Amino acid sequence: MQPIADLDFGRYQRRGYAEAVFTEGKTVDQCAEIARLWRLKSEGVGVAELGHVLFTRADRARAEAVLSQLPGAQYYPEAQLVAWPGAVPEPVGGRVVVACAGTSDLPVAREAALTARYLGRDVIELVDVGVANLDRILKHRRLLEEAAAVVVVAGMEGALASVVAGLVRAPVIGVPTSVGYGASFGGVAALLSMLNACAPGVSVVNIDNGYGAGHLAAQISAPARKEPTND
Amino acid sequence: MQPIADLDFGRYQRRGYAEAVFTEGKTVDQCAEIARLWRLKSEGVGVAELGHVLFTRADRARAEAVLSQLPGAQYYPEAQLVAWPGAVPEPVGGRVVVACAGTSDLPVAREAALTARYLGRDVIELVDVGVANLDRILKHRRLLEEAAAVVVVAGMEGALASVVAGLVRAPVIGVPTSVGYGASFGGVAALLSMLNACAPGVSVVNIDNGYGAGHLAAQISAPARKEPTND
Amino acid sequence: MQPIADLDFGRYQRRGYAEAVFTEGKTVDQCAEIARLWRLKSEGVGVAELGHVLFTRADRARAEAVLSQLPGAQYYPEAQLVAWPGAVPEPVGGRVVVACAGTSDLPVAREAALTARYLGRDVIELVDVGVANLDRILKHRRLLEEAAAVVVVAGMEGALASVVAGLVRAPVIGVPTSVGYGASFGGVAALLSMLNACAPGVSVVNIDNGYGAGHLAAQISAPARKEPTND
Amino acid sequence: MQPIADLDFGRYQRRGYAEAVFTEGKTVDQCAEIARLWRLKSEGVGVAELGHVLFTRADRARAEAVLSQLPGAQYYPEAQLVAWPGAVPEPVGGRVVVACAGTSDLPVAREAALTARYLGRDVIELVDVGVANLDRILKHRRLLEEAAAVVVVAGMEGALASVVAGLVRAPVIGVPTSVGYGASFGGVAALLSMLNACAPGVSVVNIDNGYGAGHLAAQISAPARKEPTND
Amino acid sequence: MQPIADLDFGRYQRRGYAEAVFTEGKTVDQCAEIARLWRLKSEGVGVAELGHVLFTRADRARAEAVLSQLPGAQYYPEAQLVAWPGAVPEPVGGRVVVACAGTSDLPVAREAALTARYLGRDVIELVDVGVANLDRILKHRRLLEEAAAVVVVAGMEGALASVVAGLVRAPVIGVPTSVGYGASFGGVAALLSMLNACAPGVSVVNIDNGYGAGHLAAQISAPARKEPTND
Amino acid sequence: MQPIADLDFGRYQRRGYAEAVFTEGKTVDQCAEIARLWRLKSEGVGVAELGHVLFTRADRARAEAVLSQLPGAQYYPEAQLVAWPGAVPEPVGGRVVVACAGTSDLPVAREAALTARYLGRDVIELVDVGVANLDRILKHRRLLEEAAAVVVVAGMEGALASVVAGLVRAPVIGVPTSVGYGASFGGVAALLSMLNACAPGVSVVNIDNGYGAGHLAAQISAPARKEPTND
Amino acid sequence: MQPIADLDFGRYQRRGYAEAVFTEGKTVDQCAEIARLWRLKSEGVGVAELGHVLFTRADRARAEAVLSQLPGAQYYPEAQLVAWPGAVPEPVGGRVVVACAGTSDLPVAREAALTARYLGRDVIELVDVGVANLDRILKHRRLLEEAAAVVVVAGMEGALASVVAGLVRAPVIGVPTSVGYGASFGGVAALLSMLNACAPGVSVVNIDNGYGAGHLAAQISAPARKEPTND
Amino acid sequence: MQPIADLDFGRYQRRGYAEAVFTEGKTVDQCAEIARLWRLKSEGVGVAELGHVLFTRADRARAEAVLSQLPGAQYYPEAQLVAWPGAVPEPVGGRVVVACAGTSDLPVAREAALTARYLGRDVIELVDVGVANLDRILKHRRLLEEAAAVVVVAGMEGALASVVAGLVRAPVIGVPTSVGYGASFGGVAALLSMLNACAPGVSVVNIDNGYGAGHLAAQISAPARKEPTND
Repeated sequence: MQPIADLDFGRYQRRGYAEAVFTEGKTVDQCAEIARLWRLKSEGVGVAELGHVLFTRADRARAEAVLSQLPGAQYYPEAQLVAWPGAVPEPVGGRVVVACAGTSDLPVAREAALTARYLGRDVIELVDVGVANLDRILKHRRLLEEAAAVVVVAGMEGALASVVAGLVRAPVIGVPTSVGYGASFGGVAALLSMLNACAPGVSVVNIDNGYGAGHLAAQISAPARKEPTND
Repeated sequence: MQPIADLDFGRYQRRGYAEAVFTEGKTVDQCAEIARLWRLKSEGVGVAELGHVLFTRADRARAEAVLSQLPGAQYYPEAQLVAWPGAVPEPVGGRVVVACAGTSDLPVAREAALTARYLGRDVIELVDVGVANLDRILKHRRLLEEAAAVVVVAGMEGALASVVAGLVRAPVIGVPTSVGYGASFGGVAALLSMLNACAPGVSVVNIDNGYGAGHLAAQISAPARKEPTND
Repeated sequence: MQPIADLDFGRYQRRGYAEAVFTEGKTVDQCAEIARLWRLKSEGVGVAELGHVLFTRADRARAEAVLSQLPGAQYYPEAQLVAWPGAVPEPVGGRVVVACAGTSDLPVAREAALTARYLGRDVIELVDVGVANLDRILKHRRLLEEAAAVVVVAGMEGALASVVAGLVRAPVIGVPTSVGYGASFGGVAALLSMLNACAPGVSVVNIDNGYGAGHLAAQISAPARKEPTND
Repeated sequence: MQPIADLDFGRYQRRGYAEAVFTEGKTVDQCAEIARLWRLKSEGVGVAELGHVLFTRADRARAEAVLSQLPGAQYYPEAQLVAWPGAVPEPVGGRVVVACAGTSDLPVAREAALTARYLGRDVIELVDVGVANLDRILKHRRLLEEAAAVVVVAGMEGALASVVAGLVRAPVIGVPTSVGYGASFGGVAALLSMLNACAPGVSVVNIDNGYGAGHLAAQISAPARKEPTND
Repeated sequence: MQPIADLDFGRYQRRGYAEAVFTEGKTVDQCAEIARLWRLKSEGVGVAELGHVLFTRADRARAEAVLSQLPGAQYYPEAQLVAWPGAVPEPVGGRVVVACAGTSDLPVAREAALTARYLGRDVIELVDVGVANLDRILKHRRLLEEAAAVVVVAGMEGALASVVAGLVRAPVIGVPTSVGYGASFGGVAALLSMLNACAPGVSVVNIDNGYGAGHLAAQISAPARKEPTND
Repeated sequence: MQPIADLDFGRYQRRGYAEAVFTEGKTVDQCAEIARLWRLKSEGVGVAELGHVLFTRADRARAEAVLSQLPGAQYYPEAQLVAWPGAVPEPVGGRVVVACAGTSDLPVAREAALTARYLGRDVIELVDVGVANLDRILKHRRLLEEAAAVVVVAGMEGALASVVAGLVRAPVIGVPTSVGYGASFGGVAALLSMLNACAPGVSVVNIDNGYGAGHLAAQISAPARKEPTND
Repeated sequence: MQPIADLDFGRYQRRGYAEAVFTEGKTVDQCAEIARLWRLKSEGVGVAELGHVLFTRADRARAEAVLSQLPGAQYYPEAQLVAWPGAVPEPVGGRVVVACAGTSDLPVAREAALTARYLGRDVIELVDVGVANLDRILKHRRLLEEAAAVVVVAGMEGALASVVAGLVRAPVIGVPTSVGYGASFGGVAALLSMLNACAPGVSVVNIDNGYGAGHLAAQISAPARKEPTND
Repeated sequence: MQPIADLDFGRYQRRGYAEAVFTEGKTVDQCAEIARLWRLKSEGVGVAELGHVLFTRADRARAEAVLSQLPGAQYYPEAQLVAWPGAVPEPVGGRVVVACAGTSDLPVAREAALTARYLGRDVIELVDVGVANLDRILKHRRLLEEAAAVVVVAGMEGALASVVAGLVRAPVIGVPTSVGYGASFGGVAALLSMLNACAPGVSVVNIDNGYGAGHLAAQISAPARKEPTND
């Protein structure tokens, strides 16, 4: 096999969070090869040097290819996520709240929550709290107020991001989802809605990008940010 | 002058609401000519036969052209609306509530409210009740619950439509506005948001179409709908 | 199973119409679970407290999952709708007319008609009355004039909404459909057409959203709107 | 002045209709230079060899630049058209009907009508016959049925094209106009509507392209098409 | 079966060309039912009263459903067209040329050519004459010059329409196709290209709409247009 | 004057950061009125209760209207920002770095930096560090590594966000700007680029939304986030 | 079989590079027929007269159809390319570097590299050198500086094109790929990014168009460009 | 004045072509400041070290600001370009042909031609050679065949790029222009047309980006490309 990847093994040391592999456009063989390269490296430098590697958007075939090379990895089918090492680390830093507007948004929300957990955070998930009935989100108000970072996962019109941002001190990361039909245009309606949130404190990641949101939430709520010095 | 218009004088008899003239793409002379034709007709058949004619999107020059032919017309600069006859009719039917998300949305909201009033309804306006602070809309909850029709005017992410629809029995007419910048795309973000409202009971009119929303609200809250008979 | 939904059981009391479940993005298991939660609740508070629940966009597998938990529910394959309880209520209020431009628009039209019927209205359906031959719609003119609300379902260029609105007193709810090809862009052409209708009195719901249109038609034609009081 | 144009003097002989000059993106000096080149050529080969040249989208400054070089040219400010020679030729061939949906569409309709007249056709114009009141177009039904080509000029939702095509034997050329606001997107809504016309027999030119529509109508209704021979 | 269609049996008398049935969004049963209704009508009034009915976009299953009700119909799989009666009529009027840019555009070109033939015209097809090598189209120059109407079928950048229009007297009907990938956006690139053709004399139909183009070509090249009379 | 606004005076207490007023769509009189309401409130409850109010997108006329009601406010013309009280607070929390790709992006970058400063952070600005020459950003590598939050302001292709995110531990907030022309589509190219950043850790705000980015950066780098407790 | 193609056999003599056949929209039979026509021609005029023909986007079925008519052709499944004759020619001219941002972009990169090789160039491929870690591309800096042409293949945000162009003397051909999801819109984000590259020296081909990029790279790095003479 | 720019003085040494300053989004003062910085640097290291700096999109005010700091610079108003030093260098390398479809495209074509000249190439300009009359471009066939690089500048449907590419050996750089109206969408139609060119050998730069095209043409036709060595 010709070389197919040049993995960023140094990312954990450089940035604090390890490489993740987006498996969707890759063949099953390529996924296995990448997992193999990771295992070889970890055998050389040790797991602690590399951090938790995540394989995202992994259907069962791709997940099994990864697991064949990284025994002990954990596969979460609903979130289409493989994590290695499989054990969730002990949480440090602030708490992340992941609020999910509807049942159909759950796969993306779970991807966000699991990512933040594997990157070292405590996470609470709120399910089916969309604005069609405000009581569903307002009853969690105190929890939201205490969060260090809030991830809002919503499709359709994505109004939940604005509503939550109006309630909290913490930054809100909006994840528009492709849930919807017709003029939702595969998540564009929710994306535009979140980009135009009337309440400040909302930033947005790509449609269905639960991984990116979980990563950001982990960064935002990280402990022990050292003070900057002069350049 | 060659003929420039074939006015729908029969609309009030046929549909219950008179013709309206969208002045934006018309020259000042064309506006004056249309007003003249209306006056001539009304001198022939009588005002009661024709209903209240509205001239929408009328800047001062166009408004004055209309007023020169229809003395006694009323001009509302903020809403860019001319109504003739100028007197607001006595309201009948259910009450219309026009809820406006932000100060910048006021011109469109006023156009909606004035249209519904000239078409015969009682109207209450709620100003600056956007979702960045939910208390602003929730304190009007009883008023909203009792409305026969609710018009929600909002730009940016347009989330107010979903939130209001979740609270009320009456139909909600969403009017996306071009208020915003960047990825609001001149009102497209709010339009898509309202079309994808997660709460049923929202329908949408064109961006900035306060006139259309007021017209619909008047139709929805009209009194004395006669029972249908068999065909 | 972790919690997957927080159903809005209070919607019938709060808004007058029960919750509906959009099944398209949900797994078969999630549909069954939601149906089970609904049945449990209804066993607690009684069916009359909750109203008719609808499951929309239900293919056969999802429909059977719902029926397994809610025996006595009625499934309409053409409209992809499950209703529970299955019996259509006795109609009250004004009559709804659902006008369908072409044969291919029928599934959406049937969804609209059934929704309005389960929400308590008398509904008449007009089939294949597109504007390529005006006689087809004009022969129903009297029926249209007497309607309390008109739903127009059309794909392609969606011109029927403007034409019907020019004929009637009642509000017209336009439902653009994804029927068409090429530059119909999955219903966008019809959507834009209806949003720009030259005749006032048209509002629009999402592409293919028969449920939303039927819901709105039921609201608009509802009986016994109580008079508003002062705030 | 460096050379700025390479005019297609042979087009009248080759295609039967002369060159036209789109002035909008050209400077006043360039317009004058092009007119001068035309005059020089006509002095050489004679006017009859070249046909009627049209300068389209000419505001007053550009029109005067052309007139300074081509005395005897005729300027039509409403249609922003300059024609030279200025005299309209005697009509031959079938009759063209130009139907204009609203007063604001008149400039485009006049450009179409004048183009067809200068290319040698008899033209009848119908003004303000949009579908908000079907009687306005239906009262011209016989005229439409006898046309050799029909140009339909409409903005907003552009439904007139479908309605007219359903009535006539002749080809319909749809000209979407930029009349409208919000979700008309500068004429895109009308363009898409006409491209998706449910009645066959409609083809479409660019938004606001009255010139192109008039040209096509003249071609379609031309007399004396000679029979094809074998290749 | 509830009524599913209201066929336009009078179109041949009214417009000169019969109804066509777009089968793509219809079920196999609906196609059969429509064919049955047509046969019943033809048994009543006679085939000559109705003209040739076409069923477009018919895959094999839909085609067989039609053929089961209309024996003697002719099916053209490449063009996905069923015609009934199956015999092509004797051509009258001017000749139509259908020019096809590439091999992949053939299905659309064949649909256009067959439609024009069944509507009574003589048709010549030019295959694979795209502009990447101008000699391929220029060698047919005389044939093009003699055509009464030219249909240009092209995907990708659609430049052939402009090039052909620059050569001929006859109107050019551009049919953008969905052939291409990436930034062709399913035919949008070719559509926009043809709408912006720098040579006058091009009008455009919907992407892949071979039927519409063939219909228009037949109208344009029809014999015996009677002279208009005064209104 | 009718009521035009319902200011969110409680936001500083509720969320930790005061209300901001987007002045762009408001009249000069409305800006003055809102400033007057703020002053009145501050006279009642005291400035410390309300926090620093910002007026964004303020041209000179709007700024002067605000300053007339809030003497002592500070106006920054380049950033089109008015702050009141005018004195910048003593910074607390982590340091924010604002990296600006080109000179034309400076107004947005300054708005972001000033917002973060008024919300209490230490800010360092990097100017003209776009990727056309990587050395310009790489020479600030240590500064970037020590930041608590990084704001990247870039138009055109917006590549700087990905490049910076690959270097740092802190979250990156991308602000696409409308700098560019043609296929930048007013900032859409940069927006899409940032939403698709191949390096995790980038979230995005609306085009040209320097205020929103500064607000988020201040939230992310805030001191003393209290630990969440159980709900 | 009716004629289905008019192959451009003269292209190699006219332009220096042979015809290529885009197989994606063609049937298996059409692919075989085109291959047969090519073989027949080559038997007549000799292979050297025609150059290497390429069949692009060939899945296995289409490839086998070609191979059945052109024995000795070479099929590259990853790149979906068939070349005939199968032997790669001896390279002449400057060297081409193909830089590929991620593993998922490999099929497009391989298509570009193989095309340039069959058109006579030496090619070096760089794999997985995206900007999330700049070291991956910077370590190849000398190689890039010496290239005669650089092809950059990247999906997602496509930032690699700008970064590479900032480093090199040679022209950069950007190939946006459809790798990504959500707001990558099938490669549009990368396409816009590359079109707006802040570093001059980047031009762009269609999304996923590896063939076109390889062709251009071969043209740019061709040897022996003869000096122009006066016209 | 705070620092506003970090100029890339090393670009001429690194890439062979100097920095260019896009002035459009910059203030007059910023343009002057940048020119001043350039002059200071050139006084330090000498002009020969820096190459010709270009200021693009410079209206008269910005041009004068530059000229005030860089006396001896040359301003070309039609192309909105300032070059310093003002003298055009002696051409080396292959010849560049710039072909311009219409008179309105001249400013962009002139920008491309001047850029290539200041970067050291011989340039020939062809004016008004659009495809509406093929003879205009075909009469320059030999000139095109001998070019080392061809720049095609075209608005509207941009078909000229495909036609030219079919004729020549050299790479074609397409520059779509914003010339057109309606569905040209500010140059998008031409952009898409060129991206989908059916003839290989076309790559595309941003709409109206004459500078970028001239830069690429100079790179492609540069003399003395040194042979690559092994890495």
